[in-house]
Amino acid sequence: MSGRTVCFVSDRTGLTAETLGHSLLSQFGGLEARTVTMPFVTSVQDAHGVVARINEIARRDGERPIVLSTLVDDAIRGIVHGADAFVLDFFDAFLAPLEAELGRPSAHVSGLGMHSWAGDAAHSDRVAATNYALANDDGAGQRDYRNADVILVGVSRSGKTPTSLYMALQYGIRAANVPLLEEDFEQRELPRELQPYRNKLFGLTVRPARLQQIRQERRPGSRYASAGQVEFEVRSALDLMARNQIPWIDVTECSVEEIASRILDRMKLARHIRA
Amino acid sequence: MSGRTVCFVSDRTGLTAETLGHSLLSQFGGLEARTVTMPFVTSVQDAHGVVARINEIARRDGERPIVLSTLVDDAIRGIVHGADAFVLDFFDAFLAPLEAELGRPSAHVSGLGMHSWAGDAAHSDRVAATNYALANDDGAGQRDYRNADVILVGVSRSGKTPTSLYMALQYGIRAANVPLLEEDFEQRELPRELQPYRNKLFGLTVRPARLQQIRQERRPGSRYASAGQVEFEVRSALDLMARNQIPWIDVTECSVEEIASRILDRMKLARHIRA
Repeated sequence: MSGRTVCFVSDRTGLTAETLGHSLLSQFGGLEARTVTMPFVTSVQDAHGVVARINEIARRDGERPIVLSTLVDDAIRGIVHGADAFVLDFFDAFLAPLEAELGRPSAHVSGLGMHSWAGDAAHSDRVAATNYALANDDGAGQRDYRNADVILVGVSRSGKTPTSLYMALQYGIRAANVPLLEEDFEQRELPRELQPYRNKLFGLTVRPARLQQIRQERRPGSRYASAGQVEFEVRSALDLMARNQIPWIDVTECSVEEIASRILDRMKLARHIRA
Repeated sequence: MSGRTVCFVSDRTGLTAETLGHSLLSQFGGLEARTVTMPFVTSVQDAHGVVARINEIARRDGERPIVLSTLVDDAIRGIVHGADAFVLDFFDAFLAPLEAELGRPSAHVSGLGMHSWAGDAAHSDRVAATNYALANDDGAGQRDYRNADVILVGVSRSGKTPTSLYMALQYGIRAANVPLLEEDFEQRELPRELQPYRNKLFGLTVRPARLQQIRQERRPGSRYASAGQVEFEVRSALDLMARNQIPWIDVTECSVEEIASRILDRMKLARHIRA
């Protein structure tokens, strides 16, 4: 299938089609497909434009593209089905069975259920949570741990900041993060300011060899990036977590999405924006 | 359908099932469904646990739950299909047609194509882009505009920071952001340091009434949050963008996902992590 193109076509952002598509395509190993996202296809005119682009790709590739689409509007979907392509539409597959199960018709209107910047509680939650994560990053700033949903702890470069921000943006979760430092390991105690919030703590750890590599990129040849230092810190952090019964995960093989999802699951946190 | 529960069941994070599910459910207006996410269902034992939970929900609700699942493994999917529920599985619907089109079987193995924290270029891109966004936020810090993929401009509280972070985490895009300030409006010129990078600029704007509300929450009764000031800033920013031919969008009705996706589309930016 080298030379084949996969098109993600959507009446909204295309994110759902992309996510679905990558899940599906990952099941066909060694596949080298080009991908093209065509978002915001909301009118009959847009749909004809998409068909022209798809047909052009088919001519260029000498093989019909695969189109994975999320198009709610019947007329627009009908037009895209007319392209020289193999089209799988998500609403085609799922809306009819769900209508039958629920015993009522669906709206077939695009853009329902989106969060908006304006006056939307779910959206405000996400922005507030992002501001919270930024203001409570790396054990600095506000240190407003009373209002945290979760407080991530771990050694430097264990992924605390991206995870905090992702949890805020994706789920509206208020995640603070605090580094575990040499002084904490020497005292064999949690940072004092975290002790009242022990039940909100969650640990991240990384395999020493990988962490050393990450730190080497940042500060080549430093003590901070040395094998001995990295091993000492990782071992001491795990020891601290064990003695304080802090749940933790090894993020070495995890994506940011997976780290976030595992934390929500383990800490029984509600997905604010998805409820 | 009040009282009905929707379960998102997945062998990974559950994000795809949640996204799909909310797209679908939004088509059934006025629906008040509880949602439960059951992620990381990776063994036969997990699957039996999920079935027990679903059956318990069915008993409690007096109505069978709707299960939207993304389960690659045939054995696990088979077990979940045995629950007292209406089950729609994404791989059930799409893998077989795609196998037929591609003329080869798929792997049916969970977790392929995930990005991992370790040694994965796509993941490193996202972390590097997140660090970039944090270091180049609000016109401060590094001001490393040479390495920006895009530079967001707009008045205070127009959504620049969450959008920059989202673009980094979701797409590995390096987005800096710079506020447009009173001095820029007085001089009727872009900040000098942005002038060499005019073709990377993208503007965000918000309707004055909504922006005033957002600023009121932040600094009640201030000049910053006054109707006159907000209207002046929004008008001046739009004027500056128009005279400099900077593309822009009104984010008042947009989610963060939608803002990011529209920027990628308009600026023809490659989705680093999705390619």
